[in-house]
Amino acid sequence: MRAVVMRSSKLVVDTVPDPVPGPGEALVRTLACGICGSDLHALQHADKMVDSARESGAPFLMDPSRDIVMGHEFCAEILDFGPNTSSRLKAGDRVVSMPLLLRPPRIEAVGYSNDFPGGYGELMLLTAGFLLEVPNGLATEHAALTEPMAVGLHAVETAKMQQSDVPLVIGCGPVGLAVIAALKLKGIEPIVASDFSPMRRRLAATLGAHVVNDPAEQPAIAAWQQIAKLRPAVIFECVGVPGMIDRLMKDAPRAARIVVAGVCMEDDRIRPMMGINKELSLHFVLGYQPHEFAGTLNAIADGRIDVAPLITDRVDLDQVPGAFETLRHPDAQAKILVVPGRH
Amino acid sequence: MRAVVMRSSKLVVDTVPDPVPGPGEALVRTLACGICGSDLHALQHADKMVDSARESGAPFLMDPSRDIVMGHEFCAEILDFGPNTSSRLKAGDRVVSMPLLLRPPRIEAVGYSNDFPGGYGELMLLTAGFLLEVPNGLATEHAALTEPMAVGLHAVETAKMQQSDVPLVIGCGPVGLAVIAALKLKGIEPIVASDFSPMRRRLAATLGAHVVNDPAEQPAIAAWQQIAKLRPAVIFECVGVPGMIDRLMKDAPRAARIVVAGVCMEDDRIRPMMGINKELSLHFVLGYQPHEFAGTLNAIADGRIDVAPLITDRVDLDQVPGAFETLRHPDAQAKILVVPGRH
Repeated sequence: MRAVVMRSSKLVVDTVPDPVPGPGEALVRTLACGICGSDLHALQHADKMVDSARESGAPFLMDPSRDIVMGHEFCAEILDFGPNTSSRLKAGDRVVSMPLLLRPPRIEAVGYSNDFPGGYGELMLLTAGFLLEVPNGLATEHAALTEPMAVGLHAVETAKMQQSDVPLVIGCGPVGLAVIAALKLKGIEPIVASDFSPMRRRLAATLGAHVVNDPAEQPAIAAWQQIAKLRPAVIFECVGVPGMIDRLMKDAPRAARIVVAGVCMEDDRIRPMMGINKELSLHFVLGYQPHEFAGTLNAIADGRIDVAPLITDRVDLDQVPGAFETLRHPDAQAKILVVPGRH
Repeated sequence: MRAVVMRSSKLVVDTVPDPVPGPGEALVRTLACGICGSDLHALQHADKMVDSARESGAPFLMDPSRDIVMGHEFCAEILDFGPNTSSRLKAGDRVVSMPLLLRPPRIEAVGYSNDFPGGYGELMLLTAGFLLEVPNGLATEHAALTEPMAVGLHAVETAKMQQSDVPLVIGCGPVGLAVIAALKLKGIEPIVASDFSPMRRRLAATLGAHVVNDPAEQPAIAAWQQIAKLRPAVIFECVGVPGMIDRLMKDAPRAARIVVAGVCMEDDRIRPMMGINKELSLHFVLGYQPHEFAGTLNAIADGRIDVAPLITDRVDLDQVPGAFETLRHPDAQAKILVVPGRH
């Protein structure tokens, strides 16, 4: 099959062996796969990503010196099942899945594995028991957004928001927009969001932010205070660069909860006294729970999360390296979908 | 009156004016006052302490270039009340209080004020409405431990412990020991505690720790894991030196809550990926709520918190500068009480 391969920190389009499903597995054809900020990180900093995962105690990790077919935000079509696999689904059904493959004794991260391709290839293997059928009438491209939107729902669920809380979303890239959509889904308001990029601010408003701030004109926390007054703050850090946590700890009001959803690969500096004097808390989040993933698919299918405005471009496999370059500029694109079978 | 005065980053015993109670205030005689680690910090780093409080948005702050009479862990005897002050208490009653004086338009921190002396002086002013009578039969010295023990209760309450959680207390100085006592008070077990100092480890066991670890022999987290297995971790950071938060984030199991009760005045370095990969949370805590302060006094009076083992020495005002020196060595003392009227 054809696939975009990460090889020596470069993306190349190549032909790789077709994957063969084992017991309990489905062979699927990738219909659409979003490009994630984590993939941009991985292309530049795969070694650092693996090192920090190893330090965190992760048992199985990709080897960046070997080929990897990334892509973990996908919608796919079932082609076949491996031996001894029972499923209520059948070939031709459209599915989404958490990007995990149970291949004993390991759990493989689809999209960050040397041995199993992700959605930047024409074919993938998925665990049959994890497949969620795309409801009738839901567009393939919208179903593909389940994964990144589930990240936002998980961040909001972790914050255990109360009615009195007023959220402030810092950074309106795909993670921040997913958080805004999840806050709207849960009926939390007002939602205050901040980003330097005009395109991202427009998307934030479209996704449900009630107040949209340009931090070049007014500090984000000042915009938040105008509307929140003395209500408790829940701040979602969705930027992921060094210095953001320290900045937010300095700006945050007393007793604020800061949910760290942005992925900062670098070492970072904080002033603990800022946290102590104001009794702040920091909640680092990653991924989602299975029920949050399934709930996100349902919410997209029901129209309670509208992902259409997020999709700003579609590319085929040959265009993926260029799309990665484009995504380094925050005002150019939101979510670019890879459509491997487009040609 | 006589008092130990912090003057130009030194402690000197001097005669200062007697304080005069205003409306709603009580004039009290200090019976006993504990020396707190924060006072040791303040003597060395008062400027940094004030700077970080100012950066955190605190409205009123002491001026380290002027005299300060520290001491905020006290038991006192009522001598008199200011004009127009009603109270169900009377002269001669023994009291404790949160170290706050409402002197409109300011709230003064008793023990960190230029204008109102703390417990290292013979006399203090306290807000009459904040006074809690020491129950009959409770020793003055034990009542004086209310304030530092309330700090531990507040840290434990902030952690919102579940039955399944297993706590790990890192550092068994006064803060760590107060946390252990609060965990025991709340019936949480087993309690795992860690400290390099043999004396502190003995006190940790006396206060209620079920497993006491010497980190020179075995990493604290390994001792915790032996007993906690897969139960959730709540880690209390009670050391307060740079590098501790990063170390605990590296050692913590997945989804651990880290309660930062140690006071680190320095800048600190963390690796956000460690928090993200393991979905950790950091909860910075300070002080206590009024009901936690009152509840701690009751628990001490009822014998549910036994503070007697914590008191390792008593000194008079002239001996305070020496006691500060002694407390820089962690194996020498736990809590030293200042007894101003001892002579």
